[in-house]
Amino acid sequence: MIHRLCVIGIGLIGGSLARALRTAGAVETVIGCGRGEENLLRALELNVIDESSRNPATAVAGADMVVVATALAATPNVLAAIAPAIGADAIVTDVGSAKRRVVEAARSRLGENFSRFVPGHPIAGTEKSGVDASFASLYHDHRVILTPVPETEAAALRRVTWMWEAAGATVTEMDVDHHDNMLAATSHLPHMLAYALVECLAGMEGSDEIFTYAAGGFRDFTRIASSSPQMWSDIAMDNRDALLSMLERFTATYEQLYDALESNDRNALLEMFTRAKAARDKVSLPAAK
Amino acid sequence: MIHRLCVIGIGLIGGSLARALRTAGAVETVIGCGRGEENLLRALELNVIDESSRNPATAVAGADMVVVATALAATPNVLAAIAPAIGADAIVTDVGSAKRRVVEAARSRLGENFSRFVPGHPIAGTEKSGVDASFASLYHDHRVILTPVPETEAAALRRVTWMWEAAGATVTEMDVDHHDNMLAATSHLPHMLAYALVECLAGMEGSDEIFTYAAGGFRDFTRIASSSPQMWSDIAMDNRDALLSMLERFTATYEQLYDALESNDRNALLEMFTRAKAARDKVSLPAAK
Repeated sequence: MIHRLCVIGIGLIGGSLARALRTAGAVETVIGCGRGEENLLRALELNVIDESSRNPATAVAGADMVVVATALAATPNVLAAIAPAIGADAIVTDVGSAKRRVVEAARSRLGENFSRFVPGHPIAGTEKSGVDASFASLYHDHRVILTPVPETEAAALRRVTWMWEAAGATVTEMDVDHHDNMLAATSHLPHMLAYALVECLAGMEGSDEIFTYAAGGFRDFTRIASSSPQMWSDIAMDNRDALLSMLERFTATYEQLYDALESNDRNALLEMFTRAKAARDKVSLPAAK
Repeated sequence: MIHRLCVIGIGLIGGSLARALRTAGAVETVIGCGRGEENLLRALELNVIDESSRNPATAVAGADMVVVATALAATPNVLAAIAPAIGADAIVTDVGSAKRRVVEAARSRLGENFSRFVPGHPIAGTEKSGVDASFASLYHDHRVILTPVPETEAAALRRVTWMWEAAGATVTEMDVDHHDNMLAATSHLPHMLAYALVECLAGMEGSDEIFTYAAGGFRDFTRIASSSPQMWSDIAMDNRDALLSMLERFTATYEQLYDALESNDRNALLEMFTRAKAARDKVSLPAAK
């Protein structure tokens, strides 16, 4: 049981975690912290949180679990703000989509509390944001990756694992750099491609007509380009090195495809598409909800 | 009313059209033609067609409407095979995703019957194929683009328009090259990107693990990479010129994104993503089914 859970950033991710833990009876009191007064009032109204504060240092007082669920770019400042105020037994975790820079920031900002910081990343979300978009089952059948470092206390890791499992998630542990490389491949690169595709089409003459004729495949393919531009520019910058490597790797494959088409090599295209379909067909379908 | 509808190629597209016209009471008899005996038997069993034939010239005898719904690469040969056998009043149409080469093939193969050939393209489909995947409502709230040429008889165009509207579609007319350029942008390019992305990841060390952690966004983004490799290599080759132009255009945008990231230009990324999100958010959602 968590006695006082402090969630800093009550949006889709933080709000859904609070809802999930309440639904599971895994938390007594939820303190919500955020910069926007309106969103906090809405979170109180929706009963996602019990108490609210706009000051991170005040919000964490007395909390035994602190979840930093703000925008990635804001995380270092939030960590610096809470460092002097967190309790000696409080556990701190985050939800950032890229881990290396968050870990570096936590190490320098949290000081001796760093051993109770557990870097985390729930692989869940929608293209919506804000507390109104949050729901208790967001993490059901989704993975949460925790990336402990040598300093991380085993007890802190166990506690955060327990929390996410109580929220319905499956927890996996992974090395920080491995996480960042893998997410660059499966999430960050696809977002870059979706944004680049829509940007490319939007800049064409007659783009309004183009979007009118876009069929279902296009809609699915570009849905992620509706994600928060602020969040994704943060993620891209935070995971810059791994993402640049992935972009280069993608360029090589893309050029092979271009060359096959340009040189009228139907078989090369067919072979590439056949391999890709076989790989894609192995991806497990999401569990029915 | 269509008296004898001959559908050559009873897969997702041809089968769904036959089902839709039967459901609408818009056809008396459906003759199905295909190379695969098993699929034809299944189409008879499912009551999608009334009669079957594996010979296109036999199948079109007596038909007042002929729909060529075979693979794009097979269309020229099918047109050559039916040319001597189609009735003097029969109307012929197709469903190819790229139109210029089909129109050229029809002009040279159909001879004097070419004036009753109406090039068509239903913007509908799923990543599945075969008659078992077909369903009567596939075309509801979907667009069908017809690309008549100067030789096309107005009566033939009206008749094909009527047929698709009876199947539940909204029909639009468009110039052949305009169609091919637009589809290269909204459909063919996204398919190339999805195939290239999956091919790129599948070739990486640890690709099994990568696909395990792929979340919902990745699934949506790459769903179209499960489409038929044969069909998509056909489409890419058939619409090669327009697609190469689009690939070049995409490369330019992709390089802008890469450069912004490489030079640590967070604002450039944020601006690009913001424009893309605004454009994507304007894409109308599919009508509820």
